[in-house]
Amino acid sequence: MLKASDIMSQDVATILGSATAAQAIKLMRLKDLHALIVDTRSPQDAYGIVTQADIVYKVVAYGKDPEKMRVYEIMTKPCIAVNPDLGVEYVARLFANTGIHVAPVIRDGLIGIISLSDILNKGDFLENPKSVVLKRELSRAIADAKSTCNAKGFTAPDCLDAWQLVEEIQAEAVYQEGTIPPEKTAFQEYCDEHPEILQVRHQVASR
Amino acid sequence: MLKASDIMSQDVATILGSATAAQAIKLMRLKDLHALIVDTRSPQDAYGIVTQADIVYKVVAYGKDPEKMRVYEIMTKPCIAVNPDLGVEYVARLFANTGIHVAPVIRDGLIGIISLSDILNKGDFLENPKSVVLKRELSRAIADAKSTCNAKGFTAPDCLDAWQLVEEIQAEAVYQEGTIPPEKTAFQEYCDEHPEILQVRHQVASR
Amino acid sequence: MLKASDIMSQDVATILGSATAAQAIKLMRLKDLHALIVDTRSPQDAYGIVTQADIVYKVVAYGKDPEKMRVYEIMTKPCIAVNPDLGVEYVARLFANTGIHVAPVIRDGLIGIISLSDILNKGDFLENPKSVVLKRELSRAIADAKSTCNAKGFTAPDCLDAWQLVEEIQAEAVYQEGTIPPEKTAFQEYCDEHPEILQVRHQVASR
Amino acid sequence: MLKASDIMSQDVATILGSATAAQAIKLMRLKDLHALIVDTRSPQDAYGIVTQADIVYKVVAYGKDPEKMRVYEIMTKPCIAVNPDLGVEYVARLFANTGIHVAPVIRDGLIGIISLSDILNKGDFLENPKSVVLKRELSRAIADAKSTCNAKGFTAPDCLDAWQLVEEIQAEAVYQEGTIPPEKTAFQEYCDEHPEILQVRHQVASR
Amino acid sequence: MLKASDIMSQDVATILGSATAAQAIKLMRLKDLHALIVDTRSPQDAYGIVTQADIVYKVVAYGKDPEKMRVYEIMTKPCIAVNPDLGVEYVARLFANTGIHVAPVIRDGLIGIISLSDILNKGDFLENPKSVVLKRELSRAIADAKSTCNAKGFTAPDCLDAWQLVEEIQAEAVYQEGTIPPEKTAFQEYCDEHPEILQVRHQVASR
Amino acid sequence: MLKASDIMSQDVATILGSATAAQAIKLMRLKDLHALIVDTRSPQDAYGIVTQADIVYKVVAYGKDPEKMRVYEIMTKPCIAVNPDLGVEYVARLFANTGIHVAPVIRDGLIGIISLSDILNKGDFLENPKSVVLKRELSRAIADAKSTCNAKGFTAPDCLDAWQLVEEIQAEAVYQEGTIPPEKTAFQEYCDEHPEILQVRHQVASR
Repeated sequence: MLKASDIMSQDVATILGSATAAQAIKLMRLKDLHALIVDTRSPQDAYGIVTQADIVYKVVAYGKDPEKMRVYEIMTKPCIAVNPDLGVEYVARLFANTGIHVAPVIRDGLIGIISLSDILNKGDFLENPKSVVLKRELSRAIADAKSTCNAKGFTAPDCLDAWQLVEEIQAEAVYQEGTIPPEKTAFQEYCDEHPEILQVRHQVASR
Repeated sequence: MLKASDIMSQDVATILGSATAAQAIKLMRLKDLHALIVDTRSPQDAYGIVTQADIVYKVVAYGKDPEKMRVYEIMTKPCIAVNPDLGVEYVARLFANTGIHVAPVIRDGLIGIISLSDILNKGDFLENPKSVVLKRELSRAIADAKSTCNAKGFTAPDCLDAWQLVEEIQAEAVYQEGTIPPEKTAFQEYCDEHPEILQVRHQVASR
Repeated sequence: MLKASDIMSQDVATILGSATAAQAIKLMRLKDLHALIVDTRSPQDAYGIVTQADIVYKVVAYGKDPEKMRVYEIMTKPCIAVNPDLGVEYVARLFANTGIHVAPVIRDGLIGIISLSDILNKGDFLENPKSVVLKRELSRAIADAKSTCNAKGFTAPDCLDAWQLVEEIQAEAVYQEGTIPPEKTAFQEYCDEHPEILQVRHQVASR
Repeated sequence: MLKASDIMSQDVATILGSATAAQAIKLMRLKDLHALIVDTRSPQDAYGIVTQADIVYKVVAYGKDPEKMRVYEIMTKPCIAVNPDLGVEYVARLFANTGIHVAPVIRDGLIGIISLSDILNKGDFLENPKSVVLKRELSRAIADAKSTCNAKGFTAPDCLDAWQLVEEIQAEAVYQEGTIPPEKTAFQEYCDEHPEILQVRHQVASR
Repeated sequence: MLKASDIMSQDVATILGSATAAQAIKLMRLKDLHALIVDTRSPQDAYGIVTQADIVYKVVAYGKDPEKMRVYEIMTKPCIAVNPDLGVEYVARLFANTGIHVAPVIRDGLIGIISLSDILNKGDFLENPKSVVLKRELSRAIADAKSTCNAKGFTAPDCLDAWQLVEEIQAEAVYQEGTIPPEKTAFQEYCDEHPEILQVRHQVASR
Repeated sequence: MLKASDIMSQDVATILGSATAAQAIKLMRLKDLHALIVDTRSPQDAYGIVTQADIVYKVVAYGKDPEKMRVYEIMTKPCIAVNPDLGVEYVARLFANTGIHVAPVIRDGLIGIISLSDILNKGDFLENPKSVVLKRELSRAIADAKSTCNAKGFTAPDCLDAWQLVEEIQAEAVYQEGTIPPEKTAFQEYCDEHPEILQVRHQVASR
């Protein structure tokens, strides 16, 4: 599954908070960028970002003179940052939840920038929609759990662990799609057939 | 002053509401577009739009299979449209007020599309910030008004009309910048010096 | 189906951006209006609007002196405008999506104003709910498509066109109601019975 | 100063949550109302409200059949209610802060309804803008405080109380206008002239 | 069913609008409180509230000096208030609809304060989820209605009243859960079996 | 200056996404917590969070049975995370910008949790308001820059660097307070006195 660092752009431009809006505009035009990162001054400092929308909404829309405005007047700081390991679908969900279009990718410093365009153009969601991938993963995990429990017995810790994994994958699958949860999870259905498993689990939980 | 039609892109791609999200994605990738316009079926129908953000927020973020989703499930319809004559600064203000990044340009049908990038890259706000232009326009209008009133007298309709124009330009200038209005407008200051003008105006207003 | 121009009010009052809030209030009281339109100065200028909510939220709520405030300090400009041909249900959807209660109706200039009250009191949605109308239209289009294809054969362009129309109507119907799309569209069900039609369509699409 | 009960409408129409949207629409059309109140079933129940916007945004915009929808599907419950004693400016501020246009007026039960129109048309904010009223009240309170302190001495509890009232009125005045607070309050300026007053106050505060 | 007064905290701290932010912070720290109520000066005045979020978002986030800011600069006034009789689930719904975390409980004056923590820790929703309670109440009301109608006849006013109660409980139950309404209500199903009841009801309604 | 790790709580409770809402509620009650962190399953997975507000807004407000709901139905995932080195004022600004009350503190894994209460109760903003600290830092940097330039000459790289630092500190100071920028920065004022410095800087910038 692709992660942020697989699709991010490493060609990041930074600018100082004290630079003028005009300098930011020229840099964005020159390098054909949708956003610039405002670098940190110290470890306690936060990354900031200035985007096309900031320029248009806060400078052009008010007819301001870009030579007279500073980047810090229009930037967002701290900005929301992305971990390079984060799966692309979660990057998309983070963007959706917070309404952003672009974010710096950060690990011990700035290593890239990721935007809607990167997700749209470099993601593999057309070939491998995550809901389909998770359904396959779920089927496999259920089959594994059943064979483990058959082999080792319902009371074996491995059996319980295998079903716990099924529970987690199913939770992720339902969460991912944003759909209504099933009446019963795969594990609950299995427990209906093998009620003895629940007693063991209860003992484990109460330890 | 530049208007929407001066900076819009005429290369607009349209798509049907019944097309799949996968078709929309492929079209956007192929033509390197940030948005597609959903065409109308009849004069009473509304234009729709589907953007990169719609794809990322509603398809990728939920791991959905793009082959199984339709454009109408993710589009915005009716979308906000732009008049080709609208000044670029007002396009920017409309975008700022409604939080959009792109809109179709419409006059008796679809004639173009305008985005943040068009405004940022093709606008002339760096050379001609509208607040500066309006300030110049205001100075000129004040000078005109004063010379008109000197020439024709304070009670002349032309004098009143000239000051009315000053009032409108000053209103636009203050509105444009989003700043605090002046304690007194240029006209009010002029009236302090020439109180007779107010009486005439009052007679006109009450006719 | 009713459109904006059928139910709008033609009795629109306009006001200048430089007028005082007090003048706007008096005009609204006098003519019992919920909104005034701020007229344009030039073709590049945008229409503005000032509503009861603007007066109450920005003047009364802050105890300001209406004689000392100007319309441009409280108006929304550019405001969202409505095309006179737009179907009433789409006007309602536009209002819902953008949270507005009233908008000017514009075609080559201001021709009316349309509000929630106009929609509620003059719309025909009680007698002709659009979802019901669209369902009827859909049934008819499906019957037409089937008889066309029977008469002319599955490979005839007219057959394909007829089903394309069905697809568009069904897309509109599902979009209109905001409900979950059907597992299969009418066309897809038809294709299950007559798989030969898909091959023809594919050839057309790839031309 | 006017309060909610002075300008509210006592002609309130109520409807049951189980009524159809069609019944609500007919009632609103018949009585030319912008909102209906959904009555409570028990003391622990909450008041609800259904407005023109609810009908247009949730029924018309989606082409739904009003005979098939119930009021409870579109109402807001609990709704924000207004105390009949509340000053009109605070009603306006509450409306502004929460984005509502109408609210029931409640004291031991439903006694009226208040809307933007009531505030606009029946309020006295044109003749008596609250900021002006408060400035007058503040001047008077300052004069009172000064004469009280002169008469009774800076250490008298009456002197302190009088200045405390000044502080509260000035706080209300600044809050009302939403402006930037003064560098020093009237009391602080007075204390600069009469520093002995601060010592007494400190003793009182620490008691 | 629990109501606001059953779970609110009676230990409310009030502060003056003219107090400094520093005083508010010290009081919140000292008494370990998440919010302070700003008391009213007169019956027409509104209650205000200042919360931890106000301090952090408006003072700390901007690095302001708390000694130099006043409570009125950061408070919300008028704040949303809760009636002591309101059921806890409706308090939760009001909080959800308006996005608040805490509110004063008011009846003829301030009698308590209620927060998310009070609801979470003192509510009985774990033992008695309201949807379950309402389903029980609904079953009982349906049984009552059926036996009343059997005993007194379908045309008896008591029969109609009993079914009206069923309608209201079912409306409340569906509203509470926020789920899709049933195709037919219990009453409509009953009417399918006993169509004569509808005629009587119609006569009553048209009286 | 304090940072997130100085005031965060290390006592973090985690829960599985597949756990029931009832389990989350019991854990929050038991440990008197306002939020639980939903742990990751893999490096590509995202952290989630479930708060008191999630329980009250999504479970209690809808009368749902907490035994029948899962954590993943109410959590926020990915949630916004905080870097342990981030300065407390920036944590506050991040919370203000995104409207959150609590966030996990993450570096190569979960190391703590930080909330409004931590900021309010453990921050040092009462003794050391950041705006005051920055003003002191700015004065010092200006003095340093002036003496460096006096000692080494206006054309020395050290002189330019020193003023660049002044620019950055002043930018941060103005940004922090959210106030209107000064007409001229300290550096610009200095350049007015020593215009030769600008020429040197220009040469450096164009290299």
